[in-house]
Amino acid sequence: MSDRPGRTAYAPVTEMVVRDLEAILGASGVTVDEDKRMAYSADETLPRFERDYPADAVCFPETTEQVSAVMRYANLNLIPVTPRGAGTGLSGGAVPAHGGIVLSLERMNRIIEIDAVNRTLTTEPGVITSEITRAARERGLFYAGDPCSGDISFIGGNVAENAGGNKVIKYGATGQHVLGLEAVLPDGRVVEFGGKRRKDVTGYDFIHLITGSEGTLAVVTRIILNLLPLPRRVTDLLVPVPDIGSAVRLVSLVMTEGGIVPSSVEFMDRQSILNVEKYAGMKVPFSEDAGAYLIIQLDGMDRSSLWRDAERIGDICAGNGALEVFVAEDRSSRDRIWRIRRLVAEEEWTGSMPLLSKEDIVVPCGAIPDFMNELPTIARRHRATYNAYGHIADGNIHLTLFPEDAAGPEDLHDRSDRLRRDLYSRVESLGGALSGEHGVGLKRAAYTPMFLNEAGIDLIRSVKRAFDPNNILNPGKIVPHA
Amino acid sequence: MSDRPGRTAYAPVTEMVVRDLEAILGASGVTVDEDKRMAYSADETLPRFERDYPADAVCFPETTEQVSAVMRYANLNLIPVTPRGAGTGLSGGAVPAHGGIVLSLERMNRIIEIDAVNRTLTTEPGVITSEITRAARERGLFYAGDPCSGDISFIGGNVAENAGGNKVIKYGATGQHVLGLEAVLPDGRVVEFGGKRRKDVTGYDFIHLITGSEGTLAVVTRIILNLLPLPRRVTDLLVPVPDIGSAVRLVSLVMTEGGIVPSSVEFMDRQSILNVEKYAGMKVPFSEDAGAYLIIQLDGMDRSSLWRDAERIGDICAGNGALEVFVAEDRSSRDRIWRIRRLVAEEEWTGSMPLLSKEDIVVPCGAIPDFMNELPTIARRHRATYNAYGHIADGNIHLTLFPEDAAGPEDLHDRSDRLRRDLYSRVESLGGALSGEHGVGLKRAAYTPMFLNEAGIDLIRSVKRAFDPNNILNPGKIVPHA
Repeated sequence: MSDRPGRTAYAPVTEMVVRDLEAILGASGVTVDEDKRMAYSADETLPRFERDYPADAVCFPETTEQVSAVMRYANLNLIPVTPRGAGTGLSGGAVPAHGGIVLSLERMNRIIEIDAVNRTLTTEPGVITSEITRAARERGLFYAGDPCSGDISFIGGNVAENAGGNKVIKYGATGQHVLGLEAVLPDGRVVEFGGKRRKDVTGYDFIHLITGSEGTLAVVTRIILNLLPLPRRVTDLLVPVPDIGSAVRLVSLVMTEGGIVPSSVEFMDRQSILNVEKYAGMKVPFSEDAGAYLIIQLDGMDRSSLWRDAERIGDICAGNGALEVFVAEDRSSRDRIWRIRRLVAEEEWTGSMPLLSKEDIVVPCGAIPDFMNELPTIARRHRATYNAYGHIADGNIHLTLFPEDAAGPEDLHDRSDRLRRDLYSRVESLGGALSGEHGVGLKRAAYTPMFLNEAGIDLIRSVKRAFDPNNILNPGKIVPHA
Repeated sequence: MSDRPGRTAYAPVTEMVVRDLEAILGASGVTVDEDKRMAYSADETLPRFERDYPADAVCFPETTEQVSAVMRYANLNLIPVTPRGAGTGLSGGAVPAHGGIVLSLERMNRIIEIDAVNRTLTTEPGVITSEITRAARERGLFYAGDPCSGDISFIGGNVAENAGGNKVIKYGATGQHVLGLEAVLPDGRVVEFGGKRRKDVTGYDFIHLITGSEGTLAVVTRIILNLLPLPRRVTDLLVPVPDIGSAVRLVSLVMTEGGIVPSSVEFMDRQSILNVEKYAGMKVPFSEDAGAYLIIQLDGMDRSSLWRDAERIGDICAGNGALEVFVAEDRSSRDRIWRIRRLVAEEEWTGSMPLLSKEDIVVPCGAIPDFMNELPTIARRHRATYNAYGHIADGNIHLTLFPEDAAGPEDLHDRSDRLRRDLYSRVESLGGALSGEHGVGLKRAAYTPMFLNEAGIDLIRSVKRAFDPNNILNPGKIVPHA
């Protein structure tokens, strides 16, 4: 790695560079305005990257050709480029760690085509994901990759992060829905992989290598998505259970004994529910006795099968320690159930408490009870409180940790690092990973070697070099700086 | 590419090399017996690789450590190594194009664990795929990746080729079921990616890069597979239709209007059916009027939903030109339907006719009628007859072409090359790919540039170099020799 440029080896964005970029993009396609530069230099990661990594210029290409020209120019002149979607990321993937150019894809915002016969949707990267879901739905089709952030995130960002969400257990993460990509390589060359076809073994699977690569290998400029038949019915169940062990056991039984793959299985711990009761001034049933809550969602084509599945799940829950099973078929009952889940996330965001870390733990499903049982000890050791919720069937837990005591930013930074190392070490020994769906990005780059051996880290670096020999595309992410 | 060794740059497998390999693997772990070497130097590709590429030695490692030691040795000594599963490949992926060592994984044949709570199966690569399916079934679980060759192929080969099969439309190809891999890099280092978890964005997605890389990037030594609930009921429909256009329209309507994703949608053209009638001395209903046949398979948990779906499909078929709809719920009726499909493939294999080529066409589903309508013209131009069958919902057609006239092997070789170029050119312009599921391997390596631009080919070469700087692991595959 010694042959790769460090920060000082990159060229500065001078006035002449800005003029060159304007020649490519037009005057309205480039800005060096300070407010704009700052706004485009952070994402939604908490604790926030407090303008630690300011961009020198923000570019707004409108076409693949413009992206290609910017990349070619930046590569020749050794200027770092960080691609950016809607900036809703939770790991600093779109934060320009080495300054230079932020390449916002927001003006490449057209859904190009919905092809009903082939059940595909072709789109530019700057489209809000829920617009894709809506456009498919209007044609009676279903985009199953919409993550929980679909109302605010771009599909390009979903692809860059291989976004998950709460439907992964049935439908898979974003990558599972990507049939084809057009992308611009760091040297400006345009490549196309895949297409409107459901099988393809022509060469290496670069589609899934680029998906989830956090914008470090190529800039995705066009995406072909798979669409499914639109489920016509949805049923939700709310299941308070005595403890997290019962919750995991129930999820396993629903899938094995019940033979049912729910579209979603969410869980919330006791603390999350207590927080919501306080925050929203509401009472959640069984909140005095329940150690955890499950929300199970079923989708399908007709009411009678869903009802039968719901009954089967009810029987399994009743026979295995659930405190109650609430079944919601109509819209307003379903909304009441999901409101609790939404409030859990909302309460955290609007909370004024200082934060130690927001983590995106993933372990094998069966290891969740062990992990949750050890959490109090780990938290105590670092003088932290926490709440946990997430996608239990995927083994994916969103864990938010707060300091018990008042502390300054410096102190918080060091404590959060110590806490993470302790936490990740336990996650690793339970067979888990560094991040389930939020990404490594800038936030977790230092910790990758806790989960991959030296050969694995070398492979990341050498594949990065194969795509980007000058290390100009989104440098400083995924693995520690060499 | 000029810095990579050509054939002459590789070191020969001398007696000393064989002794060194024996020191790693034991005397029973290495053979240079001529019959054995020949047997391990071809696969099931037709026309067969007639011992064009003999291996110099065949190795039989039993552990990851032995694979690692062989690779380290071969890398240091510049000896090519070609990994091999059951040798059932259809593109020469396991053929040692540059001689050297064939690394048979057949002794790494243990299913290591079935984990019912996490619904995963961990296995070595040399297990026959149908044994995995059976082992999962005994635990009430389902391995959905089993391809049509599952009774003879190894799971390691399925992973190397990202094997498809007839259930891809509902369940995806092999890669979709792989949660984790242990693999040995060309320099002998062992890496692990993924695990028993359903979300993981730690670093690049090397699982899906290695899956389908045809054994050119790493030797897979352990695989963690996802298991699903076992479907309890299956229903099959046989639908004769007037022409291929009706067949494609029906498939689209079943999924959009019907909202049903069948577990399998196969089609057979008229010629395939006529061949079967002659070969097996049987009569297939409607063979005088039907231009094509569909087999639609539904799977699920209970009889009543399947029956309702079958009825819905029946209505759609009846209203859209199908000649008849035969529904088979019981075992023997279902076997009668699938026997036709099996005989189509069997007839070809036992046929004594010389062969021009077996192709693995894939185009967008909606382009199948165009492709099939143009086939007679293309075939005529090359004095060929053909039959076609395959996985219509994936746009994947197995096309077998025979010369109309007697011809010698040399003539056949040149004609098949001209025919392929003509065929692929049309496939490409219809938005198709070089291979849907059989792989590029040795057979189609010359044609990759018809489907990927220069930047795409360069990327394959540079990623290959990132994994395998000495080009010793399965060289000569996927892209043309530089």
